[in-house]
Amino acid sequence: MKNFFKVKTLEQVLGLVDDFSPPGTETVPVSDCCRRILAQRVTAGEDIPGFRRSTMDGYAVAAGSTYGASEANPAWLTMAGTIAMGDVPEFVLEPGQAAKISTGGMLPRGADAVAMVEHAEMVGSDALEVYKSVAPMQHVVEKGEDFAKGQEILEPGTMIRPQEAGLAAALGYSRLNVYKRPRIGILSTGDEVVPVNETPAPGQIRDINTHTLAGLVREAGAEPVLYGIVKDNEKALFAAVERGIVETDMLLISGGSSVGARDFTLDVFSALDRTELLVHGISISPGKPTILASSKGKPVWGLPGHVVSAMVVFRIAVLPFLKRIQGCGDVMESTMRIPAVLTRNIASAQGRRDFVRVRLLKQDKRTLAEPVLGKSGLIRTMVHADGLLEINDNLEGVEKDTPVDIIPM
Amino acid sequence: MKNFFKVKTLEQVLGLVDDFSPPGTETVPVSDCCRRILAQRVTAGEDIPGFRRSTMDGYAVAAGSTYGASEANPAWLTMAGTIAMGDVPEFVLEPGQAAKISTGGMLPRGADAVAMVEHAEMVGSDALEVYKSVAPMQHVVEKGEDFAKGQEILEPGTMIRPQEAGLAAALGYSRLNVYKRPRIGILSTGDEVVPVNETPAPGQIRDINTHTLAGLVREAGAEPVLYGIVKDNEKALFAAVERGIVETDMLLISGGSSVGARDFTLDVFSALDRTELLVHGISISPGKPTILASSKGKPVWGLPGHVVSAMVVFRIAVLPFLKRIQGCGDVMESTMRIPAVLTRNIASAQGRRDFVRVRLLKQDKRTLAEPVLGKSGLIRTMVHADGLLEINDNLEGVEKDTPVDIIPM
Repeated sequence: MKNFFKVKTLEQVLGLVDDFSPPGTETVPVSDCCRRILAQRVTAGEDIPGFRRSTMDGYAVAAGSTYGASEANPAWLTMAGTIAMGDVPEFVLEPGQAAKISTGGMLPRGADAVAMVEHAEMVGSDALEVYKSVAPMQHVVEKGEDFAKGQEILEPGTMIRPQEAGLAAALGYSRLNVYKRPRIGILSTGDEVVPVNETPAPGQIRDINTHTLAGLVREAGAEPVLYGIVKDNEKALFAAVERGIVETDMLLISGGSSVGARDFTLDVFSALDRTELLVHGISISPGKPTILASSKGKPVWGLPGHVVSAMVVFRIAVLPFLKRIQGCGDVMESTMRIPAVLTRNIASAQGRRDFVRVRLLKQDKRTLAEPVLGKSGLIRTMVHADGLLEINDNLEGVEKDTPVDIIPM
Repeated sequence: MKNFFKVKTLEQVLGLVDDFSPPGTETVPVSDCCRRILAQRVTAGEDIPGFRRSTMDGYAVAAGSTYGASEANPAWLTMAGTIAMGDVPEFVLEPGQAAKISTGGMLPRGADAVAMVEHAEMVGSDALEVYKSVAPMQHVVEKGEDFAKGQEILEPGTMIRPQEAGLAAALGYSRLNVYKRPRIGILSTGDEVVPVNETPAPGQIRDINTHTLAGLVREAGAEPVLYGIVKDNEKALFAAVERGIVETDMLLISGGSSVGARDFTLDVFSALDRTELLVHGISISPGKPTILASSKGKPVWGLPGHVVSAMVVFRIAVLPFLKRIQGCGDVMESTMRIPAVLTRNIASAQGRRDFVRVRLLKQDKRTLAEPVLGKSGLIRTMVHADGLLEINDNLEGVEKDTPVDIIPM
């Protein structure tokens, strides 16, 4: 055990992300892949589309046959046939001919464009007037224009959104190899903490953190494993932590925010096999008394006891580690921020990264970030907040009307 | 069947949301409630916190005993005891006394503030020097300050984020009544469409829409029910749609984007029992050929066949209806937009609402929205996009450098 009492910067902590790795991969149906992280390469095994395809309802033509056409002087074409959906047209379209085609239909050989149904009119049963000239490849997607055979389309580490799932389906992947959904153990500590279904005696408080952290874990796409409340008793804590490390891929121990309880957690960490203390304090507020250890190659966190601090630390420090063991290529990607304008001055201490809860409001066409007032120890400040404003270590605060980027919460 | 061929504006379509309602409610454990929609009121049954609580490690004092204290002239207090976590202090703190307390501990009667451990030092075993004066209620949360007994905290229709789940837990709700997760039927049509695990013959294409829509439905917090591919055959489509309406809470029929196939879907809708056509065309691009009917009180959609159009219509028009049957209080709430600056001029047609795919980029401290180039029929435009730019009906386009609000995708 090393690194006692050396508070680290947030950057130093996030630099430890690469000490960890995902627990493995599994193969799942493409329709269940959404929000999972791809563990394989996705390659186009064939041209997409596989044929020259119409993107409109209308008439397949050789573009040249329509040049100069207008309302006053339409192009006159003869009908060569109708192309049914899913069919391969048997005929070759000659200049001066047209064939009826639907969106998604395959163009016949000789055709290189589609005249929209709105710009053409049948005259009798076998002639067509076209009122507007079309350019070559207009209203057409060429064979292989979307994806060419052999092209690498998706990389391992990509988060699969609905569009990536659809794309994989288009390429014939009915199943995809993805990283296993990590199991995240959650453990509350504290002699004053009672389960939700008990009425707290004076001096006691219900276990808020388990349920808040379970929500955060699930929202991040991982599976929470609840270990309940462990009293401030080194033997009990040691047994629970040891079990959690075996059964899960990352462990979140919350509570123990008092100096004595923190020492407890540290004592347990130093008694554990193959365990190294990596972080003992982060220079952020809230969230300074955060502990991170590596035990049997898994991250084990000691989070602050107060739920608001625990949520901030989860969002700022834990989430990138979770993304790492989920297999994400870019673990910081989740930090998409919302630009807004600050509604009032905020003071901050230098040498410390502050995270201020803000509510987002729309005013006219602007997005405003309004600091949530109230003591930091109040749960309701978190419920009223939509995000966090990060104030850099070297600033003494941020002035009203400054453009800021908000971390959504 | 009415409303044939009357294209509606997006606002008119969204005005129909209130024709529909959620399928019912169920009670689930609070740790499984994340992203669910609350169907009950959550009220504080007691004061939170239930006692005057310390938010710091330090010493409980009467604030007045520290007035004027400084490094040079510390306040001298005598120790009255130590308060263990979860305990009710038996003694009353007199002026001039202090008691050791941890974060979350209960203040003894007579104490109204906490001196931080950093600003005090024990002198021997029963005396304390305090180097900084504290104000009344400093580092303390008062009984009921977070939530007062009887206060209504959360309303039906609220989406439960991790913080709301934690809050409900704090108030003793171990289970919550939430709206049932709607089941959304997904059905692809088209003679040219083949399942993902088949190799498409020339003229054919794999079923992309089922998997993309399944992802969108799941991402929105509902359960997709897959009905596979139905050929362009009125009898088969009728049977599949009739079954889907019985088994699910909303039905998405995609494909049939050609005029003939659209007529098919309309024929099926008019043959269905207790079914009213509500929308036949929306003045948006892409997505104009969208159909909405109400069948036995459930929304039934005919979505465009091209996956890019289907995705846009889902995001813009279907999602508010999905949120309605999920029980959301504010069905438009999901349309949180990301402010950005447009990187190039975009042209648009008046009298039509355009949705342009954009990629979001960070440059210096600005968020840029870069239109994704490429024909609208290409799947890859969707994979490259992070969001949609909405261009109003009455605009001919948007100029480069204009501040815009992007709908995330």
